[in-house]
Amino acid sequence: MILLNPRVAGLSCLRCETDYKLDDLLEGCPACRKEGHAANVKVLYDTTQNVTINPSKSGMRRYAPLLPYASFPSLGEGCTPIVELEILARQMGLTWLGVKMEGQNPTGSHKDRMSPLVVARAVATGRMVVTAASSGNAGASLAAYAALVGLRCVIVTTPDLPHPWKKAIKMAGAELVIQSSPHQRWQYIEDKVKNEGWYPATNYTHPPVGSNPFGVQGYKTVAYEIVESMRNHMPDVLLVPCSRGDLWWGIWEGFREAAKWGWVKEIPRLYAVEPFPRLTRVLAGEDYRSLFPGDTLLRSIGGDTVTYQTVLAVKHSGGGAVTVSSAEAEEAQHQLARCGVYLENSGAAPLAGLRHLLRTGEITEKERVLLIGTSHGYKETK
Amino acid sequence: MILLNPRVAGLSCLRCETDYKLDDLLEGCPACRKEGHAANVKVLYDTTQNVTINPSKSGMRRYAPLLPYASFPSLGEGCTPIVELEILARQMGLTWLGVKMEGQNPTGSHKDRMSPLVVARAVATGRMVVTAASSGNAGASLAAYAALVGLRCVIVTTPDLPHPWKKAIKMAGAELVIQSSPHQRWQYIEDKVKNEGWYPATNYTHPPVGSNPFGVQGYKTVAYEIVESMRNHMPDVLLVPCSRGDLWWGIWEGFREAAKWGWVKEIPRLYAVEPFPRLTRVLAGEDYRSLFPGDTLLRSIGGDTVTYQTVLAVKHSGGGAVTVSSAEAEEAQHQLARCGVYLENSGAAPLAGLRHLLRTGEITEKERVLLIGTSHGYKETK
Ligand SMILES: Cc1ncc(COP(=O)(O)O)c(C=O)c1O
Ligand SMILES: Cc1ncc(COP(=O)(O)O)c(C=O)c1O
Ligand SMILES: [Zn+2]
Ligand SMILES: [Zn+2]
Repeated sequence: MILLNPRVAGLSCLRCETDYKLDDLLEGCPACRKEGHAANVKVLYDTTQNVTINPSKSGMRRYAPLLPYASFPSLGEGCTPIVELEILARQMGLTWLGVKMEGQNPTGSHKDRMSPLVVARAVATGRMVVTAASSGNAGASLAAYAALVGLRCVIVTTPDLPHPWKKAIKMAGAELVIQSSPHQRWQYIEDKVKNEGWYPATNYTHPPVGSNPFGVQGYKTVAYEIVESMRNHMPDVLLVPCSRGDLWWGIWEGFREAAKWGWVKEIPRLYAVEPFPRLTRVLAGEDYRSLFPGDTLLRSIGGDTVTYQTVLAVKHSGGGAVTVSSAEAEEAQHQLARCGVYLENSGAAPLAGLRHLLRTGEITEKERVLLIGTSHGYKETK
Repeated sequence: MILLNPRVAGLSCLRCETDYKLDDLLEGCPACRKEGHAANVKVLYDTTQNVTINPSKSGMRRYAPLLPYASFPSLGEGCTPIVELEILARQMGLTWLGVKMEGQNPTGSHKDRMSPLVVARAVATGRMVVTAASSGNAGASLAAYAALVGLRCVIVTTPDLPHPWKKAIKMAGAELVIQSSPHQRWQYIEDKVKNEGWYPATNYTHPPVGSNPFGVQGYKTVAYEIVESMRNHMPDVLLVPCSRGDLWWGIWEGFREAAKWGWVKEIPRLYAVEPFPRLTRVLAGEDYRSLFPGDTLLRSIGGDTVTYQTVLAVKHSGGGAVTVSSAEAEEAQHQLARCGVYLENSGAAPLAGLRHLLRTGEITEKERVLLIGTSHGYKETK
């Protein structure tokens, strides 16, 4: 059963703060777009009603009263553990180091917090097809949730998609469409969305706005969970692997809400970890709507664009951006595996970012540091 | 920090019920062995003290007061979701069908409920090396938990170990020893245990007794979790992929305890799912200490032996054993994946077993059925 949250009041632009009625603004704020600025919208909630969680539910459904759908299809996503890395913390001279194990979600990545809400929205609005442009994780996740409710799913990807993701997507019964470049994936989806009513989980415009705003709301639950389980010893700093910044913005929004409701006093500083300078260049003055090409082995956080939502979250969180090389991320992947935490290379990148920021002094040894380990290690073939 | 549970009172033989003081009876009950009967021991607890859980903890630690170690190293194992398979239930005419997602444990299988307790015991008793004979999952799990506490780990396996497990084990820093057959793995470990003090997570004797009794206690938590989350709508039937029957016996023991404490009135019937007739042959009269060779693609539940603990649990649970072919299990794997639940072929075997038992009438459509999905699908290469 799929139920809209009665608290949902509409949508609002992240940039110009124009409010819209509840709708699918899949290309972001129309007003900003007219001005040539791509910017995502967010879901607005009625704040006069009491904000509660549903403690009798497990997983992400626990937070359904704070999400666009009060009831949504579930494969058991959310409430991932936070593992303390005592030995590594000692080696690095840190007070406390932990990793949130997003790879323990149903399809092995944080994307499982987005897909159930996208699928809920698609079903609620009578769509016949859901689709995603994906380098793997978003596709495997959407395919699984579409399968759960029996919805047709088309994943649009590039020829280099590694076998484990390809297999997972096909096993779920989704169709795979191969396009020659990431940007061509977006064009393919744009056509299908505009002409055939397909419902997209991910971005398809250029400049990009980010993923489906109903789906992105799911990432707030990462912050809620951190607050619920660490309230008395909150981390000072979070490091998040970042591409289009959906996860990153969602975590920030979740913390902001938690602070507003008095669940927590201070919000941790958020650092976006990227595989080559993108956000870093924007923070140094470049226009976020440019292209920022770069080479990396960290496929899941590749991509040559930056979104407004990413810039917004970095400016207000008091954190920043940090670039890590593929070699550094893979070294971090090995170090984490040797502590028992086996992550995809992109998911391990935060540890490499942490080493950089300790060196520059932006993070100090006294701080409590939480890495967001976005995906498990079994997906890489080599 | 590792703390023995103060309620631990010793060990007791599953077969002759002789009590022993707390020790490492790694080859099972010495009295039964003298008689030529291999039988595992279980941990005994002081029943005069109050039985409680620790509701402030998440994951398996929630049940630490009911486990041999009150505090043990954790990667966030346990409290896996139970996913309702509505569409499949409707197609099969079932009242209710669900799957417990053991693949969402830290290393992707239920073995993560055993390893932390084995590692806790090894550390508490000053062992320098932990070891396991493994076809993949037990090895990947033990390697990760050994890495977490910085203990040396040696995984003994056969030449056909597929790449994803091999990589996971090596990434954790464990050593891989390849022996030409499963039984030779046991001989190798027996030598190291007896002559070099290595601490084994798994069986190494023939006839086998099953895995390390401290580790096996962890499987009780599967039953506790089912009782906690389904108490008011308990499943009537459970189907469990079975090899040496550690998981299977542990789940049964957990339900028995839960019934004893009044947490639940009735215990579900348990059906062991096997890839060729082993337990089935024993139930038909053969000696459990024989060899039961057979061919299967379900590597994780292969093996040509039966243990006393398996026979004991099947006789008392009111359930039985069911054989599924590799083709049936892989068909089941595809069906589950098309519902969004992507499991290893061995982990999907329970659905194939269910179809058999519905045909024979041993399970009826009116019953509420829970499959134990022991491992996720990303581990298979092909
Ligand atoms: C493993 C992994 N980490 C991080 C991300 C970052 O996602 P986002 O686009 O939300 O910044 C992705 C998404 O593609 C991913 O697959
Ligand atoms: C995927 C999977 N399922 C089930 C089992 C059954 O284990 P047990 O030996 O406890 O019966 C195993 C263990 O090897 C396994 O790897
Ligand atoms: Zn706007
Ligand atoms: Zn005995």
